[in-house]
Amino acid sequence: MAAAGYKVVGTRPVRPDGIEKVTGKAQYGADIRLPGMAYGRVLRSPHAHARIVSIDTRAAEALPGVLAVVTGKDIPLADDVIRNLGEGAVNFRDLRDNVLASEKALYDGHAVAAVAAISQHIAGEALERIAVKYEPLPAVLDVREAMRPEAPVLDDRRRTKDVGNTVGDTPTNVASHIRFQGGDVAAAFAEADQVIEREFTTSTFHQGYIEPNTSTASWNADGTLTVWTSTQGAFGIRSQLSELLRMPLNRIRVIPLEIGGGFGGKINVYLEPVAALLSKKSGRPVKMAMDRTDVFRATGPTSGSSMRVKAARKGNRLTAVEASLYFEAGAFPGSPVGPGAMCMLAPYDIENFVIDGYDVVLNKPRTSPYRAPGSPQSAFAIEQVVDELARGAGLDPLEFRLVNATHEGSRQVTGVAFGSIGNEECLRAAVASPHYKAPIEGPNRGRGVASGFWFNGGMQSSVIVSVNPDGTVNLTEGSTDIGGSRASLAMQLAECLSVPYEAVHPIVADTDSVPHNDITGGSRTTFASGLAVYEAGMEVQRELIARAAKQLEVPADTLSYEDGVVRGADGKQLTFKEIAAAQARTGGPILGRGAVSARGVGAAFATHVVDVEVDPDTGKVQILRYTAVQDVGTAIHPSYVEGQIQGGVAQGIGAALNEEYYYDETGHLHNASFLDYRMPTALDLPMIETVLVEKPNPGHPYGVRGVGEVPIVPPLAAIANAIADATGHRFTALPISPRRVVEELGN
Amino acid sequence: MAAAGYKVVGTRPVRPDGIEKVTGKAQYGADIRLPGMAYGRVLRSPHAHARIVSIDTRAAEALPGVLAVVTGKDIPLADDVIRNLGEGAVNFRDLRDNVLASEKALYDGHAVAAVAAISQHIAGEALERIAVKYEPLPAVLDVREAMRPEAPVLDDRRRTKDVGNTVGDTPTNVASHIRFQGGDVAAAFAEADQVIEREFTTSTFHQGYIEPNTSTASWNADGTLTVWTSTQGAFGIRSQLSELLRMPLNRIRVIPLEIGGGFGGKINVYLEPVAALLSKKSGRPVKMAMDRTDVFRATGPTSGSSMRVKAARKGNRLTAVEASLYFEAGAFPGSPVGPGAMCMLAPYDIENFVIDGYDVVLNKPRTSPYRAPGSPQSAFAIEQVVDELARGAGLDPLEFRLVNATHEGSRQVTGVAFGSIGNEECLRAAVASPHYKAPIEGPNRGRGVASGFWFNGGMQSSVIVSVNPDGTVNLTEGSTDIGGSRASLAMQLAECLSVPYEAVHPIVADTDSVPHNDITGGSRTTFASGLAVYEAGMEVQRELIARAAKQLEVPADTLSYEDGVVRGADGKQLTFKEIAAAQARTGGPILGRGAVSARGVGAAFATHVVDVEVDPDTGKVQILRYTAVQDVGTAIHPSYVEGQIQGGVAQGIGAALNEEYYYDETGHLHNASFLDYRMPTALDLPMIETVLVEKPNPGHPYGVRGVGEVPIVPPLAAIANAIADATGHRFTALPISPRRVVEELGN
Repeated sequence: MAAAGYKVVGTRPVRPDGIEKVTGKAQYGADIRLPGMAYGRVLRSPHAHARIVSIDTRAAEALPGVLAVVTGKDIPLADDVIRNLGEGAVNFRDLRDNVLASEKALYDGHAVAAVAAISQHIAGEALERIAVKYEPLPAVLDVREAMRPEAPVLDDRRRTKDVGNTVGDTPTNVASHIRFQGGDVAAAFAEADQVIEREFTTSTFHQGYIEPNTSTASWNADGTLTVWTSTQGAFGIRSQLSELLRMPLNRIRVIPLEIGGGFGGKINVYLEPVAALLSKKSGRPVKMAMDRTDVFRATGPTSGSSMRVKAARKGNRLTAVEASLYFEAGAFPGSPVGPGAMCMLAPYDIENFVIDGYDVVLNKPRTSPYRAPGSPQSAFAIEQVVDELARGAGLDPLEFRLVNATHEGSRQVTGVAFGSIGNEECLRAAVASPHYKAPIEGPNRGRGVASGFWFNGGMQSSVIVSVNPDGTVNLTEGSTDIGGSRASLAMQLAECLSVPYEAVHPIVADTDSVPHNDITGGSRTTFASGLAVYEAGMEVQRELIARAAKQLEVPADTLSYEDGVVRGADGKQLTFKEIAAAQARTGGPILGRGAVSARGVGAAFATHVVDVEVDPDTGKVQILRYTAVQDVGTAIHPSYVEGQIQGGVAQGIGAALNEEYYYDETGHLHNASFLDYRMPTALDLPMIETVLVEKPNPGHPYGVRGVGEVPIVPPLAAIANAIADATGHRFTALPISPRRVVEELGN
Repeated sequence: MAAAGYKVVGTRPVRPDGIEKVTGKAQYGADIRLPGMAYGRVLRSPHAHARIVSIDTRAAEALPGVLAVVTGKDIPLADDVIRNLGEGAVNFRDLRDNVLASEKALYDGHAVAAVAAISQHIAGEALERIAVKYEPLPAVLDVREAMRPEAPVLDDRRRTKDVGNTVGDTPTNVASHIRFQGGDVAAAFAEADQVIEREFTTSTFHQGYIEPNTSTASWNADGTLTVWTSTQGAFGIRSQLSELLRMPLNRIRVIPLEIGGGFGGKINVYLEPVAALLSKKSGRPVKMAMDRTDVFRATGPTSGSSMRVKAARKGNRLTAVEASLYFEAGAFPGSPVGPGAMCMLAPYDIENFVIDGYDVVLNKPRTSPYRAPGSPQSAFAIEQVVDELARGAGLDPLEFRLVNATHEGSRQVTGVAFGSIGNEECLRAAVASPHYKAPIEGPNRGRGVASGFWFNGGMQSSVIVSVNPDGTVNLTEGSTDIGGSRASLAMQLAECLSVPYEAVHPIVADTDSVPHNDITGGSRTTFASGLAVYEAGMEVQRELIARAAKQLEVPADTLSYEDGVVRGADGKQLTFKEIAAAQARTGGPILGRGAVSARGVGAAFATHVVDVEVDPDTGKVQILRYTAVQDVGTAIHPSYVEGQIQGGVAQGIGAALNEEYYYDETGHLHNASFLDYRMPTALDLPMIETVLVEKPNPGHPYGVRGVGEVPIVPPLAAIANAIADATGHRFTALPISPRRVVEELGN
């Protein structure tokens, strides 16, 4: 059934790509085969930190069947400049050095060379024949260690970009330091009824997408480049290739394939430039694919962190927070400490705060965005402290949050006021939920709650809408469909044009075939590409009226479009199908285009409730029940919204209970496989209940808010709070794995 | 050097697809490989005319490796209705019966069944196991024979659609009879100084494209269909598949590949529906490819014809023409007798005429359009008669044509007046050409001239223009690039936007990725898609001004765009590149769209001059010198215009001297290979000289006229006139092959 006032919005039709995916016909990167195609493989550093003294590729090149070998020298030197490609700032020297190491290998698995050969096996054999002379250096693997003056420095040229745009004068691993502050923290602490101060750590964990990264490149004799890849944003890949390879944008065609998950981890280039260079050298299309070990060692993960939070309460009011967030950037700067700092206090209307954030490099893979980047970490810290303050106030933790909740007009730590938000509505819905009303009983059982926030994104989107002569419609868009955006966009177009959902066929086109679209990320696609769809749909509506005016021989301004029919004052009318059928003789193809740099983003709040049972003997934490309440704006396709929420919660549960990179002291990763890196499976999880709070975003004609990211924010803290409730012990380090539970409970 | 007043138009840049094609990387139909792909082959009738009594496919289906077998029964029954898909009328019952025969096999090579198997060899073996029981029927192979009441009738349901929309009452092979008339022919003949009456015949000849037809289809589990094919119009293939398979247009995606020639022969479906049905039955993608024998037997060709022309002169004026054109349609109606009739008198301002045209079915392959369909045949007739009248008047044949030439305002046989045309200019340029001024001397040598006409086409085109942030531009279009249209469209966009040609990257997108485009045919693409490009470019110009207004903070109406710069009255300015770079923050992606149902088509005239030498012993005719003069409107890319003219002349020479289908009396084709079907090679031809008369078409902003088709019109007649000049004998039957020359000259 459609949402109130809508015909299509709010229904749950079949996803356009669903059958193709379940029948195995959908084309992923691994399915690409091209005439004359060669296979590329990457040689990776066995050292976490080492100077590359020399690379001798001659023996590899001499191996029969080897077509090309490349090293860092083959990528043009990039300047140490940060450029904003419209999707966040990128330092191209860093990006280049991550793609193929130049002077130093900075983490276990850092790419140092690559080979193209006529078979994968020969390529593998050739890798063994590349002689890399390393000078091993001490590695630093802990964020607080990395900040110490005596720590090994990854890059002698690096200076801290400090608060107020000052720049440090000594080599350091601290890439930057940011601060958000307001009010008078010291005074608030002095007047407080209760002050809690705690330190927290979170582990390094990976996006864990099911499809390993893969790219195929064909460098053509005319200097153009075609790349088939699995990515969250074909245009972003194109931009990065353009900068790294110094090619104009219009010489590069990126063809996006189906994506087996990304979660932020498939935004930046890894294999693409390498495959392109191997193709250029070999004159053949070159296909490259990572195995799972490569994925763990050299892509993703999100930042491990160390955090200190001090917070105060006076009566029922949260009065002050002082926090320091130390985020691991991995081998190159770029941790999400900024968003982590900006999100943590978003649920709370608080006057006095100071938050310091540090972006710190160390000898781990360059981190990538991961679903609401930074926010789960900082929520893990603040939401536990808030829990303790609520207990101190003697209030139900949701009540305490309601008392202190932000609402429309509340100021964020950046000073910007919130628009229409559903924070309080989520808290109230959580209180009213069957789950929260049910008792939690039994030994070693406990209940926890936590709030979460994500900004959601806007950015650029474009679509083209083509009306076919039989009254069906093609929607050409450029947003990678990760979580059902083909359907959510087709539904918005069907709504706008008053045609059945089945009449709209959405397609994700390549970078040559559709105008610019920023990445699918930031929970922006259904919102921002939806705005573009609406704009295009309205243009089609105007064109339908203009064409009908010609057919009916009446002035266009006497006509209006409603329910799929153009009607005139005199009872004359033409249906969408009739106007579509006549288009060839009324002026040619009917089409509409939408192009937006989206404004009116609606932020997302969530409140989660979780019941756990802790086995004190094995340390296993069982999730008994989980309810996720979220302001989803208008749920265009409620099943996908629920799916997004359930997926985010599942990932949050993994981070809370099991997921971590296990490095030895020399910086070798020891659990780079799904056997040893423990992600939750269906057997580990209950059915995750969802409560959709629909507070329409006034910045979108159908009220759309992004829904994909905020669900991962509360679980880490909610589960820690539940475990504290169950055990009386507060776990401040992630993951709360069986080993840790057993150790800390001391049973 | 650019044409006067232009920067890009008139230059000769490298074609965007050139290097890809010569390095073998361009993707043609034969290059497609898909996971799980099966191979399809077609069983063809060995009889020219036979009732299909039964088809037993069981033994084929039982063969290991065979995945599916289809026959005519697998295509939904189509109604005997003619539908106009925007690109000419199509009778879907006929189209269906041609794709896979239903009740009868109507020509040698008619498809009767098809097989998909895991290999081509197994598919071939399976074909031999299909038992078709035929009841052979007498075949009719000559157009005049086919019209006789006692001739075998191909379809008992067929009745003649006669002049005035009357319908005959007896079964017949004459599908239709049309008439154009004006003035008083009888009176004019009575008053004439000279009357010539002759009969002519032209052979059945093939488009001769180098790439055999090939199609791959993937019928997906969700009921959508993807087709990779080599076609002149992906949207036309989509429309035909939609009608034949009864699927909505938005469920079908046709991906056009590079095309190895079409010339009108790759407009209609042959393998596409068969591959689709085999894919549906087998659950696999199915690839099908014809060999050259299949191509000759079952695709193309153009109409063989029989024509009677009677024409009169009074003084230097052509006063009357009476013509009957009998055109072979092949097995199903649809010969180009209509355009043949409409073109033949276009060069002549003549008052009294009656032209009867007959569309006649017989037991040959269903004909397809072939470059200026019908016009070469009728020109072969009329231009020889005009030649004789000119000689009778004692006038130079070009002078005689000039005296009688049509010009702007002259009426066509349809009654429609010509717009701006370059007929007289071509005749004058031919008179002034170095070739025509040079003497023709020596035994057995002669010179001939002829005029030719083609309407040129308009129809629908759409394009999308995307401005990249680095100031390059992507042009997404949907017109198959046969003769350089990527370049000719990119050049028009570069001209419109005042950016370098290299800044524009044109791409031919698939039917899901670009709005509707009619076929590349009718010499319409550079004109009509060019109009769409201009419309899109102007929209981009307006958007550039709007964006610059935001950046400069001045009203948009104070700004103008010229030479790649937006300038204001106060000296403020921004370059195209600067505006492009800022687009993300000035409103999002800058794009323009053009969609036209093109008006303002400019017709094409040509005058050709040819010198030949006839070897009376061997019968060989050598082309000594050839000059083609043509009104090309503005030559966007003169090299391609010259190439189109040279290609058309080469094909015309082939038709004049060698090309013919050789059938025995039972209707078996005996020369279905390039060994036995003689096309001209480079060794047979001199360098063909071209004279570009540029009379801009006022219906296009850059004056574009279609140029691709008219060059094939004059050669047949010009060569016949030259041979008459050389030998004193007038050849009225094509081809004027060595055998025919020896026989008719009686040496």
